[in-house]
Amino acid sequence: MQPELQSRVVVVLVRARNPSNIGAVARAMHDLGYTHLRIVNEYPVPFAAAKSAVDASSVLDAATEHTSLADALADCTLVLGTTAVGERVLEHPLYLLPQAAPVVAEALATPEARVALLFGSEKTGLSNDELSHCHALVTIPMNDRSGDRHLSMNLGQAAAVCLYQLALEPAPAAAPDPDPPASAAEVDRIHGLFREVLDDSGYSRRHPANSREAATRRLVLRMALTSSDATVWSGILRQLLHAVRK
Amino acid sequence: MQPELQSRVVVVLVRARNPSNIGAVARAMHDLGYTHLRIVNEYPVPFAAAKSAVDASSVLDAATEHTSLADALADCTLVLGTTAVGERVLEHPLYLLPQAAPVVAEALATPEARVALLFGSEKTGLSNDELSHCHALVTIPMNDRSGDRHLSMNLGQAAAVCLYQLALEPAPAAAPDPDPPASAAEVDRIHGLFREVLDDSGYSRRHPANSREAATRRLVLRMALTSSDATVWSGILRQLLHAVRK
Repeated sequence: MQPELQSRVVVVLVRARNPSNIGAVARAMHDLGYTHLRIVNEYPVPFAAAKSAVDASSVLDAATEHTSLADALADCTLVLGTTAVGERVLEHPLYLLPQAAPVVAEALATPEARVALLFGSEKTGLSNDELSHCHALVTIPMNDRSGDRHLSMNLGQAAAVCLYQLALEPAPAAAPDPDPPASAAEVDRIHGLFREVLDDSGYSRRHPANSREAATRRLVLRMALTSSDATVWSGILRQLLHAVRK
Repeated sequence: MQPELQSRVVVVLVRARNPSNIGAVARAMHDLGYTHLRIVNEYPVPFAAAKSAVDASSVLDAATEHTSLADALADCTLVLGTTAVGERVLEHPLYLLPQAAPVVAEALATPEARVALLFGSEKTGLSNDELSHCHALVTIPMNDRSGDRHLSMNLGQAAAVCLYQLALEPAPAAAPDPDPPASAAEVDRIHGLFREVLDDSGYSRRHPANSREAATRRLVLRMALTSSDATVWSGILRQLLHAVRK
């Protein structure tokens, strides 16, 4: 997701109680490129303590406090509430998180759009009243083998996973490998030296089947040498040759 | 990822200090369907406290404690270390997390395979020595606009994001490789023999920088040995040792 789109994603924490959780959410926002945090509570939250959290200060400094959810959501065009599946009768469309990401990206394609992602209190999640502000619900796909469907991932973790998935949409470009692979000529030189070592050490004579040229070349090719590996191996093999021939 | 594949993903926490972080990792593992947690520390960690964590008890009860990383990784065939990009000179292949997921799924298609995902200490991440046990590194794609590349997501959050992404990966279509990869214990044995050969041939004395343990371990890891390769190399190295010592 481009920075401009991410700047129109708003994270809303409703009745979050633990300042260190607020700090963790802010850190994940900072790391993953989000800026807008809104905190909804009926009374002021002592989140000043969280402001000292590493790298979260820019997000926390810009955070706004609201006494009503409606106020916090005023400029948002799509409101998604996070929930554990099965927690309550679902009266909303429910997206698994991977399905929600393209929905959010598509919504943000409209320049005026602003998407809110709501997280409820650590203990109780979002209340029915709070859910009623949501266009749809989002859930992190969980292990459904254990039988219990209780979402026990903590607030900081759930926010990190959601924000990660949204930031990823669409997938980023690959990081280039700093060390290029060895050329076939380099591999061939290594292989030639390697065969000399096998011959002169007596290995080829004792294990002729393992020493067939096709077998030893495969062995060297499988090493998937990089160019700098090839240089090191060349030195090692020359030294071995020298030592074996003494 | 199917449950059977997830059951062969091992989460390894190296020098984790905060029991509540260990608890958070265990909770995320439980929620997302993982079972194998290993904890590496030079002294026993008081993570009994973390055992009270909601829904994490099954994972924590089954967790094993290790005093050496090599011991914790012995049965693993692919070892991925998590890191913040740009933290150090990269001597490993680096995958962004979304790219790592299909690599892990493909590795697990081989029934004998077991993949370790390493997390370093909260403060310092993985040391160079610890990194030398890794085949490749994985990083969570971060906001690169802020200029600082410090990974400040906490341990519980980073683990939740990584495990979420891996759990999401569909099973690979590729047929498994008939020749399974060597385990870390097999690689360790080859590495031990290899170091003896380097020492006794005089290579280590002449090229001390290339002969540091972390450097030689990386060189051996890069060979991407299969189990049958390991047997052949073991024979080659023993013969070399014999020839060099004459």
